[in-house]
Amino acid sequence: MPALHESVKKLISHSIMSKNLIHWGILGCGGIANTFAADLRHSQCGRLAAVSSRSKRKANAFARKHNAPVAYGSYEELVRDADIDVVYVATPHPMHMEHSLLAIRAGKAVLCEKPAAMNARQLRRMIKAAEKNNVFLMEGMWSRFFPATVQLRKWLSEKRIGRVLALEADFGVNFKAGPKHRINNPALGGGALLDLGIYLVSFASMVYTKQPEIIVSAVHKGKTGVDDQTSMIFQYDHGATAMLSCSSRVEIKTEARIYGTKGMITAGPIFYRPQTLTLQLQDHKPKTVHFSHSGNGFQFEADHIAKCLQKKKPQSDLMPLQESLSTLTTMDKIRKQWKLKYSNE
Amino acid sequence: MPALHESVKKLISHSIMSKNLIHWGILGCGGIANTFAADLRHSQCGRLAAVSSRSKRKANAFARKHNAPVAYGSYEELVRDADIDVVYVATPHPMHMEHSLLAIRAGKAVLCEKPAAMNARQLRRMIKAAEKNNVFLMEGMWSRFFPATVQLRKWLSEKRIGRVLALEADFGVNFKAGPKHRINNPALGGGALLDLGIYLVSFASMVYTKQPEIIVSAVHKGKTGVDDQTSMIFQYDHGATAMLSCSSRVEIKTEARIYGTKGMITAGPIFYRPQTLTLQLQDHKPKTVHFSHSGNGFQFEADHIAKCLQKKKPQSDLMPLQESLSTLTTMDKIRKQWKLKYSNE
Repeated sequence: MPALHESVKKLISHSIMSKNLIHWGILGCGGIANTFAADLRHSQCGRLAAVSSRSKRKANAFARKHNAPVAYGSYEELVRDADIDVVYVATPHPMHMEHSLLAIRAGKAVLCEKPAAMNARQLRRMIKAAEKNNVFLMEGMWSRFFPATVQLRKWLSEKRIGRVLALEADFGVNFKAGPKHRINNPALGGGALLDLGIYLVSFASMVYTKQPEIIVSAVHKGKTGVDDQTSMIFQYDHGATAMLSCSSRVEIKTEARIYGTKGMITAGPIFYRPQTLTLQLQDHKPKTVHFSHSGNGFQFEADHIAKCLQKKKPQSDLMPLQESLSTLTTMDKIRKQWKLKYSNE
Repeated sequence: MPALHESVKKLISHSIMSKNLIHWGILGCGGIANTFAADLRHSQCGRLAAVSSRSKRKANAFARKHNAPVAYGSYEELVRDADIDVVYVATPHPMHMEHSLLAIRAGKAVLCEKPAAMNARQLRRMIKAAEKNNVFLMEGMWSRFFPATVQLRKWLSEKRIGRVLALEADFGVNFKAGPKHRINNPALGGGALLDLGIYLVSFASMVYTKQPEIIVSAVHKGKTGVDDQTSMIFQYDHGATAMLSCSSRVEIKTEARIYGTKGMITAGPIFYRPQTLTLQLQDHKPKTVHFSHSGNGFQFEADHIAKCLQKKKPQSDLMPLQESLSTLTTMDKIRKQWKLKYSNE
């Protein structure tokens, strides 16, 4: 009976797929959680298994919207769910440590939104807990996993543009937001640096594969006391530089330009989720490569984590914890220059 | 006799034209003097009358190349030439003060290449001498006079992009030059800041119509001790910024981007001699205006000076001496941060 035969094949295939599927639990139902959940549909080996919010009503609505089988009205219930392989911590950054620790101590792998914590000290605690509980932990620097970013790293490691001498990247959004909005609210870890600047600092860290020797910066603080415009110069050995600026009050182009001794690479139009790379070598015509994908692109991060978990890797080698710790240390140094400290860190 | 009548008309017309023509004397026969002399051909009311070099042979060759009626083997002879209205000082910047003073004291109007002097102290002496001798003096910031720059200033003064909050401009050239080349040679006032950075500092001064309140910078010095890569953040009131970088060792795009509360303007592809302006207002399609001209564009500067002289203006209102002095003061502050002082200043 060929019909039965086919259904058996399907059953076996489904069982294999299920084995390889990674079950995600989302902790927090805000804006970024929505985007992540929507992108999970494009993931090759990830499936949304449960969502959670402090409000059961909010969790239910989120679950309906994203077709999640389970909705929890508490984070504790989510991390106790035996069906969950990995928890995506999508709460505001002042809560990243607490919620990551909650999941880690429950034995769950954790993907924690960026910045991984408010400061390096907090992340160090999270890393220790992950080591102690023998679980996977990664900062949600989703930029790292885009096909264009993978290609960019390849060009850089092949020294296609020679030795990198200068990097320029910016990220400016005119939020037009009030004092209670996340971006302005000190209680929610507001400020352009933590929200937008983390992309710049992490990108510079990726390009130079190290932290700067010298950091100079200028800041403007808005009415709530957090930074709304930030300019930074990072200097590396032999005077190579990164010029980085972020703002929550003015729309600044989000292109990145990397200049080396042999040419330049442009990543854009949005460097942190690039769809175009242009390689311009001296005395050559520019070569532009286009990349396209469905959704916002969180699926590349989700699929990377699925592979790490399937291979039982203790952490990601593309976004290692040591690097997240280094970039947070750089962010700490910058904020120290401005005397910007949050009450909840 | 209509033929005679015509020739008389031509004679009268030529005589009027001659009266309005400004006679240029070029002091120094280097690279920039060559470009200036070539562009004078496109000037509406300027004529190359004489050239001078310390080497008579060099002056002769230059005069032949640019069809100058007179060639002098000394600068003293040039400034004594009664036929010369204005002297273009085109020697390296450590000689700007000395050569400008020579011409000023001979009663000549002076266009002095940028930077107008090595430091503000030197320029102050030049300004005093110009006032005492009642002659016109201007820094050769030729960028100011391009049709695109005029249009850009118009848009800025009309607040088309609202209040300016951020400016980004860069100027990087890979000179591939030895230690004796002008750009590296301390005796010739070498270094990226004085040679390329002056364009950035002057451009920021034009955009913000003031000097920065806070300057932070990072520098790399090459083998000869002068700066070969320089990054600067200027901060103005209410945290508006200029991010500027220049380099003599890496090719960095020379585009300028000006961001305001209502939109942005891009000046490029070479901001200091722009041929394209793009106005991008929020929620509008970008509007690009193209400008084209003959030669390199020094003719716009020459024609501006001709008009100033014809109107007997004591100085230019588009590139006033007070502003040149302010930008040099900013340059002095930057160099002080790096402890870079030239023996001949």
